[in-house]
Order: sequence, then C-alpha cells, then structure tokens
Amino acid sequence: MRILGIDPGIGTVGFGVIDTEKGRNVYVACGAITTPPNTPLSPRLDMVYNDLNELIVTFSPDAISVEELFFSKNITTGIAVAHGRGVILLSAYRSGVPVYEYTPMQVKQAVVGYGSAKKGQVIYMVQRLLNMKSPPKPDDAADALALAICHARSMTSRLTEEGEINPCSTI
Amino acid sequence: MRILGIDPGIGTVGFGVIDTEKGRNVYVACGAITTPPNTPLSPRLDMVYNDLNELIVTFSPDAISVEELFFSKNITTGIAVAHGRGVILLSAYRSGVPVYEYTPMQVKQAVVGYGSAKKGQVIYMVQRLLNMKSPPKPDDAADALALAICHARSMTSRLTEEGEINPCSTI
Repeated sequence: MRILGIDPGIGTVGFGVIDTEKGRNVYVACGAITTPPNTPLSPRLDMVYNDLNELIVTFSPDAISVEELFFSKNITTGIAVAHGRGVILLSAYRSGVPVYEYTPMQVKQAVVGYGSAKKGQVIYMVQRLLNMKSPPKPDDAADALALAICHARSMTSRLTEEGEINPCSTI
Repeated sequence: MRILGIDPGIGTVGFGVIDTEKGRNVYVACGAITTPPNTPLSPRLDMVYNDLNELIVTFSPDAISVEELFFSKNITTGIAVAHGRGVILLSAYRSGVPVYEYTPMQVKQAVVGYGSAKKGQVIYMVQRLLNMKSPPKPDDAADALALAICHARSMTSRLTEEGEINPCSTI
C-alpha cells in the first residue's frame, strides 16, 4: 500500500511517499512544492493545486495523510497556510484517494514515541525508520514522510485491534 | 461591466452580481452557496469550488471582488473560512476573470461612507443603492453585493483620477 504524506503550506508544501506492507515501511520519494514569494496568493494556490494533482497522478497513492492545522502564535501565517490547505484538500478529494488527517502531536507520537518531540528528533527517526542514508530535506519533506509513517502505523494498529481498516478521520 | 462580489466562507458563501456603467449600478442577482454542516471539510470545499465555477459561467463577470479575511476573535472559524477562501480564489483565478480584494473596512467606507458602519447600515445602503424592493437576503448576499459596489466605486474613482483602470490589489 502506498501512502502520500502532505505537510500543508503556501510557500512550501512538503510531500513524502512510502510503501507499507505488514508493518514495514519503504521510502519511495520526498520533496517539496514551492511557490515564489512576493507573488499574489491566487497564482500560488493554482501552482499548489496543479503540482499536487501531478504528484497524485505520478505516485498513485492509496491513501493521503495531511497534517491538521494548529496555530497558537502567528494568525497571519495560519490564515495563509489554511488557504493552501484548502486547495490541497480539494485536490486530494477530487482525486478520489481517501484522505486522513493527523495533528502534529499524533505524528510525533507515532514517529518518535512522544507528542512533544522536537523537529530534529522527528527528522532523525524518519531517516532511521526508512533506512535513508541522509536526513530527508527540506524539513517539510521530513514532516510529510512522518505523516505517511503516522498513517501507516495508525492503520496497522487499527488492523491489529479490529481486524479491518476503518478510516479514523476522513476529512 | 459586470461585477461578481463574493463573501467567503465554508458553510455559507454569499454572492452578488451587479452591472455598472458610468457610475450607475444595477442589481442582477444575489444569493448564497451553502454546504451542509456536520459534513467533512473536503466535500464541502468541493461543493464551494464547483458552485462558484458554475456561477462564473452563468453570469460571465468582468471582475470578481472578494473580501479579505480579518479575524481578531475566533481563530477556529477563521481557519475554516480561510480553507474556503483558498478554493474560492482558485476557482476565480482559473476562470481567468481579474480578481480584486477589499477589507471589510474598505467595503463599509465605499457603501455607507464610514469604515465602522454596522451590518444593518450596510444592508440598508445596498438596498437603496441598487433600488431593491426588499433587503437582500441572506446577510452574506448583502455583503457580497456590497463588495461588488465597492469594486465599482473603487474603479470609478481610479478612472476619474488616473484616466484608466489599474487593478489596485489583484490577488
């Protein structure tokens, strides 16, 4: 089963693709969709939408794992990221691939083992869990791979507990 | 010239269409795109996107006037509305129609005459300026008509001052 993880944004949208089978996760690809700063918001949204459509066609994921937004500090950045996340969810929904969402805390819990882990710990664990020779870059790509791993683990635990997979939080 | 005003949202997206010529504004249509509550966000975004595409095809506007987001209170609502606004801007951008944005204060200034006007005053002035027999409903539709009027007035003043129209804030 192939999972596409997405770390939402407007300037940088991280993506990470893994294959998962019987609890074993294999790295496929990672990177970031970037849009030029000092450019109006509408064409940047269009770039994110088109590039994500292309990623979905290229990698044919069976599930898409998107981070939930959590803002306590910068509302202006939060609003811009939410615009981007809107078109990300639209692209994912229209592709027909099931979409799941996880909070940053759930992702850290799944990858590092505790919800308040630091960014460096997440990157280190992603590299280790996927047997990568060097840390995934940029950080947004590492976060996206962590989201994919989080969904793989969440799915495995539900499979173990219930004997079948039920989307826990289809958005 | 035909202007489509949009009051962004996710549960209710107000729209208002006017024709404007030589400083005279004529009411064409207004209403709201609504999406069912207690429904996942992704299909709601898809409904907003599809319905707005349809409105643009139906009314063939020459300009689209969208409200800027301004949040000081409820960040959760703000984040949801920003998701909706993301797909609204995407739909507008992909239609090829020039998009302009105005703050709530600019809209009130243009329609009522001062930026801190109350909602009831905006509705009253929209009805008067467009010679409508009854107040536009729902309120989101009145706000959308106000956005269309705001763009018409902004355009007229720029035309008078500069002799030509330049988008002031293409988004």
